[in-house]
Order: sequence, then structure tokens, then C-alpha cells
Amino acid sequence: MSKVAIVYFSGYGHTVKVAESVAAGAAGVAGTEVSLHRIDAEGQLSDADWQSLQAADAIIYGSPTYMGGPAWQFKKFADASSKPWFSQAWKDKLAAGFTNSASTNGDKYATINYFWTLSQQHGQVWVGTGLMPSNAKAHSPADVNWTAGFGGVMTISRSDASVEESPSTGDLKTSALLGERVAKAAIRWA
Amino acid sequence: MSKVAIVYFSGYGHTVKVAESVAAGAAGVAGTEVSLHRIDAEGQLSDADWQSLQAADAIIYGSPTYMGGPAWQFKKFADASSKPWFSQAWKDKLAAGFTNSASTNGDKYATINYFWTLSQQHGQVWVGTGLMPSNAKAHSPADVNWTAGFGGVMTISRSDASVEESPSTGDLKTSALLGERVAKAAIRWA
Amino acid sequence: MSKVAIVYFSGYGHTVKVAESVAAGAAGVAGTEVSLHRIDAEGQLSDADWQSLQAADAIIYGSPTYMGGPAWQFKKFADASSKPWFSQAWKDKLAAGFTNSASTNGDKYATINYFWTLSQQHGQVWVGTGLMPSNAKAHSPADVNWTAGFGGVMTISRSDASVEESPSTGDLKTSALLGERVAKAAIRWA
Amino acid sequence: MSKVAIVYFSGYGHTVKVAESVAAGAAGVAGTEVSLHRIDAEGQLSDADWQSLQAADAIIYGSPTYMGGPAWQFKKFADASSKPWFSQAWKDKLAAGFTNSASTNGDKYATINYFWTLSQQHGQVWVGTGLMPSNAKAHSPADVNWTAGFGGVMTISRSDASVEESPSTGDLKTSALLGERVAKAAIRWA
Repeated sequence: MSKVAIVYFSGYGHTVKVAESVAAGAAGVAGTEVSLHRIDAEGQLSDADWQSLQAADAIIYGSPTYMGGPAWQFKKFADASSKPWFSQAWKDKLAAGFTNSASTNGDKYATINYFWTLSQQHGQVWVGTGLMPSNAKAHSPADVNWTAGFGGVMTISRSDASVEESPSTGDLKTSALLGERVAKAAIRWA
Repeated sequence: MSKVAIVYFSGYGHTVKVAESVAAGAAGVAGTEVSLHRIDAEGQLSDADWQSLQAADAIIYGSPTYMGGPAWQFKKFADASSKPWFSQAWKDKLAAGFTNSASTNGDKYATINYFWTLSQQHGQVWVGTGLMPSNAKAHSPADVNWTAGFGGVMTISRSDASVEESPSTGDLKTSALLGERVAKAAIRWA
Repeated sequence: MSKVAIVYFSGYGHTVKVAESVAAGAAGVAGTEVSLHRIDAEGQLSDADWQSLQAADAIIYGSPTYMGGPAWQFKKFADASSKPWFSQAWKDKLAAGFTNSASTNGDKYATINYFWTLSQQHGQVWVGTGLMPSNAKAHSPADVNWTAGFGGVMTISRSDASVEESPSTGDLKTSALLGERVAKAAIRWA
Repeated sequence: MSKVAIVYFSGYGHTVKVAESVAAGAAGVAGTEVSLHRIDAEGQLSDADWQSLQAADAIIYGSPTYMGGPAWQFKKFADASSKPWFSQAWKDKLAAGFTNSASTNGDKYATINYFWTLSQQHGQVWVGTGLMPSNAKAHSPADVNWTAGFGGVMTISRSDASVEESPSTGDLKTSALLGERVAKAAIRWA
């Protein structure tokens, strides 16, 4: 079995939905075992979570974009990953990422960019969305990759939108496609 | 008179509209003289253009986002600016930027980020949009800063949208507000 | 009096030295009042610290680069700054930044870049080092801006170097020059 | 045979040396065919070059860092790659990168970051150096990854250093290790 681990923080629940869509997409690939690891409000993971990350073939990073970057709880996790970094224990695992924020554009790229930077310190191999953008006039948030994330998935949850109503179905489909892509890449890379 | 120079490249004309909106916003500030400098298809500016940049109190950079960054013609201009760089001739001038692309989000941040990086090599002082995002459910492209640019203005011209119909009126208003903000900052900074 | 506030995190003490050098440089500018605000090990500032930031004309951000970005404690502070962000209470204050890490180069740019991104969300005006690099063969870490930071100051403290012996005198001089530049800019901008 | 193509620009010859070291490292991996493609002074590649890129399993990008980013000639190549982009013809090819500049640090990260951004538009899979930094007091430019590039190789050629004397032997060893890593990854990924 190929193992895909998703490690993420979610403040209000929107990013949980994105993470679950990524997981569903990965789980749909035969021969793939998916695990979800939610960083808690204090930026902590359990020992079992850390062991799952160590056992994974691919690690997918996720966080809302807060104040132009990943939430501090995600960064606390990233700083704690200096332990596997010292022994390059995550070297050659695949990596990917997703972020959610209220704004159409804003600084989502900066968060995805940080995930990539982190992955490169770990010697990981980065897999992006591999998707073309939906950027014609007829396109809407219901379409795949309407936000046009290349390095990673960018989803939108408006500032006054409930977890029930956001992100859009298009964003969630895009998230599932990222999961599927990473799972297939993990099998190919094995 | 305070002098604001806008130096930009435009491939198909959408960025011309953004540049002109920025110019109109700056020109509306009393005591401001605005000049527009379009980099040509070969990445060239005239000697008179270079002299205007040298005389300016603020230089605003603009380019479409092509393949994840500013157009090569803009970069050719930036590389040619190594001449004023050697003598730090643009030191302490204000700087700002704008970019346009077909996608909702994509890599616009990367282009604005490059403009900032360039400005810092020149020892310039960076002024962003200073605008809050329009990111509630009721907002639309007709609103100011719907794309949520902070470091600079991000506008959208859909892949099949004519120059007549794009960017949106909201994007053009946002562009005018950047021009106004930079012009006021130039007077304050003088 | 013009007020320059330095808000920073330091894990082992090297960044304290950088912050103090920046402060000394700023304090040398007549008419400038400098305050230092160290984010604690839990990512907290006191109410008095937050009030000083609110009263400041310029805020200088500092953090070591850990795992490719600012320390999580700094990010926790940045996320908490969403409170002044909502009312754009820091709008038009000057901003600048510095970072320290063990490596010659590494991801220091990413940390400075984050500080800029944060400042742009706040509507601040960014001031870089305004320094040319010391990049000829005869140059050494004893020279000003040997690391070649433009957007902000980049200092080096080798992985086995004590706080007594690092960063280099050149790095500390560079830090003082940033403080001086920001203090002068704050007076000009007032 | 696994095919590794290196596409790069060099202004004065230092980057040629880096490219050739990357090539030598890749060529040392059994079953690997390496090709070098130098972008000319006008930003052009021959048709045969474009065909080699199309046939490659991995494309490694290289350019000096000029004015905070890749040389305009490299960007012209990148913009011309919108042709294979439209059909996603480079999708799933591996990607990697290297940059050279006179400064110790400066904006090299920004150039590597751009290469990654470009690769993600193309749907490529990114491979970094996978190297720990040489950042203890005893280390020198003769050591592998003294500059501490993670996302890509960062080399130094001082502003007054001839092509004969720079980059350092450590930088060139690092470059060879990148070539070797990418070649091995291409075989694994096949």
C-alpha cells in the first residue's frame, strides 16, 4: 500500500472540508492508504501523528492563509519538524499543499510557496495541481481550478460564509483532484 | 510639483487600461505631474523615458503576469535598470506596482513580489494598495479590491475578454486608488 | 519625537544582538525614541508592548529563519496583529525587517519576504536596507552588507557559534545602518 | 535511456560552468543522456533545442540572478514556453534549478523560486538539492552546499572574479550533486 498523509490546521472548519476532499481524492486511487492529521489549536500533533508522517510516502500540507502566510499553529508544526529534518528523515517523500482564505486572491500564493520552501528543506519532491486554470468569461467558482492554483490548491471561503456553504463545489473538486494526483504520483514514485 | 512615473509593459492592451487608471488616480492629486512610459515589444524605453524615471519622485511598475512572472520585456527593462542601480540613482524614490492576468488568482502575487524585490535593489521605499479586501458574499468584481491585492494591484482580464470589457470597473477603481495613494505619499515623502 | 518600535523573537540570543544593533542605529538619530519588544517563548507580547506598537511611527520586524520562515512565535504575533488589521490601525506606519540564521544564504529571503507581505496587509510603507552589497573578492563578513540583503537585513550565526561570537561585526554594523535608515525615514515621513 | 535537459542562460560564462557541472553529475548516472541548451543573447533557442526539451524526462532551469530575478533572456524563453504550456506538453516532467550571482546571499532565492513557479504552471514535479547546509564555523566555500540552497543550487561568482576562478569548487560539487540527484529521480520516476 502507498501511504498519503495529510497534515493541516483549520481554524473554523473550512480547511477541514478541503482536507477531507483531498483525502477522498487520494483514497479513490487503488492501493492507497490515506490518513488525516489535524494540528490542534496549540499547534500540536500526537506521537501517533508524527509516526504516520514518518511512515508516509507523501505528505500534503494544508492551512488557512492568515495575515499573509500559514496559521501560526501550522508554523509551530513546521518548526517541530526540525527533528526529522536533522536526520533528513522525510527526504524523498512527495509533498503537496493547499490553502483557504476569504479573499479571491490575496496572499494565498505566499502560503503555498511556504509549503514548498518547507518541503525543500526536508528534501521532498513537490507535486502541484497539474491543472489548467478555468479563466474564461463563462467560468465560475463551480469550475475546477477557477482560482488558478498551480503550485497548490487555493480555495475561497468568503468572510461571511458558513462551513456548510463554502468552499465552492469547484474548489472541493479541485482539492479531490490534487489528492488523486498525489496518490498516483506516490505509486509511480515508489 | 511632485512627479509620479508609471513604467509598464502591455501585450494586448488590458494593462494599458490599468496603467491609465493608475495615472488618472495620481493626476487627481493636486501638485502631481504624471507620466506614462510604455516598454515596447522589444523591451526598450527611449532615452527621454529613462530621464523621466530619473526625475521622478515615485516609480510605479506594471506588467501582465505571463508564465508566473512579469513579461520578459519588463524584465529586460529591469535588467537595463542596473545602470541607475550601480550609482543607486533611484535610491529613496517611492515604488509601487500592478499586474493583470486572465486567472482569478494564479501567480499574480509572484509578479508584485518581483516588483518589490526590484525596488529593494534600487533602495526604493515601497507603497502598497493600503486597501482592505472586498471578500464577503455580496461582493463582486465591481467592488474595490475584490481581488485582494495588498502589496500591489491585481486585476483580471479573462482569457476571452476584449480590452473593451476588461478589467472590471472595480479593478480600474482599485487602480486609480493606487495612483492616488502613491501621489499623496510622494507629496508627504518630499 | 519620532517613535521606532522593534518587535522580534529570538530563540537563542543571536537575534537579540541584531535587534539591539538596529535599536542603537535608530537611537543615534536625533529626535528618535526607540523601543524593543521581545516576543516571548509562547508567542506573546504584553499589553504595553501592543500599545507601543500602536503609538509607533515605524515598526521593525525581526525573527530567526527557522524551517524556511519566521519562527512560529513571530507568526503567532503576526496572527494576533489581525486585531489592529481589522481597523487598519497600523496603516501608513513605516515597516522594515531583519532575520538571522546559521546558513550563508538558505531561506533568509523568504523570511524578509514574509515581513513585507505582513506589512502590506497592514497598509504599511516598506523601507529596505538601501545598501549596496559587499560582493568583491576582498570582502569578508566584517564588511557592511556582505550577505547582500536588500529588502531587509540578513545576518549569519553559524550553527556552532556562541552568542558572544556571532553575528559578525559587519552584520551588526549593517543592522545599525538599517535602524538609522528607518529612523531618518520616519522623520522624513512624519 | 532517461533524458535530462539543462536549459540555461549565461551572461559572462560563470553560469556555463555551473551548467556543465550539473550536466557532468547527471551524466555520471548510468542510463542517462544529458543535453545542454544555452539560451542566446537574444533569449532564443533553436528548434532542435525545443525538441530536446519536449523529449526530456527532466528539465533543469538555470540563470544568473540579475536585478532580483532570472535574466530577461531566460524569461523570454519562459514566456515562449507558453506554447508547450497550452497543451501541457511538459506535464509530469521533473524540474530543478540553479542560479549564480556575485553576492553571498542577495536575491538568489527569488530566482530559484521563479523556476519553481514556472515548473508548476507546466505541471512539472520539482526536485531540490536534497542537501543539508554546510553552516558550521569550520565550513568554507570549498564545502558542499555552503550557500545552503534547498529548492535549488545557489552559487557565488564574486563581482571581480574571473570565470577561471569562480564559482568555488564547493559550488561546482554541489551543482554536480544536483545533476546526479535529478538523473536518479528521473529513472525512479520513469
